[in-house]
Amino acid sequence: MNLVTSLSFGEEHLKRLKNNFKSVNIYMYNNIEEAKEKLYDADVFVTYGFDMTNKLIEKMERLKWIQCFSTGIDVLPLDKIKEKGILLTNVRGIHGIPIAEYVMAVILNYRIEAFKFYEQQKNKIWKRKSDLEEVYNKAITIIGTGTIGKEIARKAKAFDMRTIGVNTNGRNVDYFDEIYSNSELNYALSKGDYIVQTVPLTKSTYKMLGKEQFESMKATAFFINIARGKTVDEKVLIEALNNNIIKAAAIDVFEIEPLPKESSLWAMENVFITPHISGLSNMYINRAIPILEHNLKAYLQKCGKYINMIDFNKKY
Amino acid sequence: MNLVTSLSFGEEHLKRLKNNFKSVNIYMYNNIEEAKEKLYDADVFVTYGFDMTNKLIEKMERLKWIQCFSTGIDVLPLDKIKEKGILLTNVRGIHGIPIAEYVMAVILNYRIEAFKFYEQQKNKIWKRKSDLEEVYNKAITIIGTGTIGKEIARKAKAFDMRTIGVNTNGRNVDYFDEIYSNSELNYALSKGDYIVQTVPLTKSTYKMLGKEQFESMKATAFFINIARGKTVDEKVLIEALNNNIIKAAAIDVFEIEPLPKESSLWAMENVFITPHISGLSNMYINRAIPILEHNLKAYLQKCGKYINMIDFNKKY
Repeated sequence: MNLVTSLSFGEEHLKRLKNNFKSVNIYMYNNIEEAKEKLYDADVFVTYGFDMTNKLIEKMERLKWIQCFSTGIDVLPLDKIKEKGILLTNVRGIHGIPIAEYVMAVILNYRIEAFKFYEQQKNKIWKRKSDLEEVYNKAITIIGTGTIGKEIARKAKAFDMRTIGVNTNGRNVDYFDEIYSNSELNYALSKGDYIVQTVPLTKSTYKMLGKEQFESMKATAFFINIARGKTVDEKVLIEALNNNIIKAAAIDVFEIEPLPKESSLWAMENVFITPHISGLSNMYINRAIPILEHNLKAYLQKCGKYINMIDFNKKY
Repeated sequence: MNLVTSLSFGEEHLKRLKNNFKSVNIYMYNNIEEAKEKLYDADVFVTYGFDMTNKLIEKMERLKWIQCFSTGIDVLPLDKIKEKGILLTNVRGIHGIPIAEYVMAVILNYRIEAFKFYEQQKNKIWKRKSDLEEVYNKAITIIGTGTIGKEIARKAKAFDMRTIGVNTNGRNVDYFDEIYSNSELNYALSKGDYIVQTVPLTKSTYKMLGKEQFESMKATAFFINIARGKTVDEKVLIEALNNNIIKAAAIDVFEIEPLPKESSLWAMENVFITPHISGLSNMYINRAIPILEHNLKAYLQKCGKYINMIDFNKKY
């Protein structure tokens, strides 16, 4: 049985995997180009996902299972994978901590006006500001109350923020003071000083934040997207930021990535751009490997008890 | 009875104070220059503190009580105030929230390497970084476990950081995983990934962080000072930052303020400088006024039940 990975998880993890799974031939590469060498012999393929195409899947005739090391599997050719009867699992659940750290970082960065003081420092300017606005008692509306949304809410509570969640049916979730269902989205948005988009990209979340949603937000709202660019109508977002419909934004994900040089987002003073890094950290591989190990065991035992098996109907 | 203030707390608070204290003549000014008009008739003086001098105290012959609207009262001529038998109170306790927000902001700012991505954005550069270091499970050593230290520890726990406190006798305090006494300071410093200085400036804390202390810290340590510049040997701090004794720092307070243009701190790439703003926020006056009101009532009733009466021996 051959396991091929187009991502390197490091020699140490490789060694342990080889030790723990002696019946598996493991071929580790740094990218899909290098992996070509063994790709078409793979029974199991480990990937970040973005390197998969319809054509590739067709050619990987032995492929039975893809372990995706991302959570968003919208970049994969899902229909083809389903058609071929290939099992697909992801690493959902491991992003809660780094993404919640990122979200609190951009909120607090905005709170202390860090970039203003950074520029002052460059010019050796000592200029105080006494009306910096605390996050204390401010409301944060979090769209999606899964692992990521919940971890953000948990941290926000330590800042005595009021946490407002939005999920499909309005069910209660720990660390949220209020929860609304999808049908009450606009109302939930109207209450937030900070708005965080965390939901996966599916047919029903595609451009779910459009004109009506941004117009529901406070004029002072600070918008954060760490989910997927396509869950937002980016053109509408840019207009909202340019026309004082909302105040500012921190954006980690975009309709097209890398964000094209032509995008007006780059130069907007009320926008902080990061290159899709909110989920990345030194802990990433360490948290993903146990999922691979568990699923590999399940695969070998044919017990079917996989972690994070993708439901092709829900697409997450 | 005359109350003079060299700081403006706004018309709304003034109106309410006048209503609640009809026997008190309240004269509100924007600064000490304007206040000169009524200064020498003051029985009670409200000030941020930095405008008080020995000479001024001598001339304010009716002065019986100073309500300082700062927490650090080291800037006041304490010996003269004591000699004259003038009561001194401060607003200790109101800085916990804004300063803890600031501390978490600079820690998380460093965590997501915000300034790097800010510069990349200016140049429309999309360059990802996968080894950003989480704060999860990192250790934070907080020198001082009063209102501020405790509030920082509370927030740090929501990030699953290990919280290490240092106080005079090593007594336990909520939200701290470990506490050390002053005599174990260097050991406590050696354990911290982040080091936060929060203690007031007194004779015994003057330059308490010197060569030995910085050399006790990890080479990867990130140092934060939101207390007083003079609790640190600034020359030693600069050397430590230049010679990789520690990694980086966020500094809000300095030996001399405003920080002189000549200071090498301004241009150091591993230093983030803010102009003594960590305790300031939109909520400042709102939190200080109730202390003034309480103490004014105590003053009029001669009951002696003041909040935050300064002990001239301890000097805080």
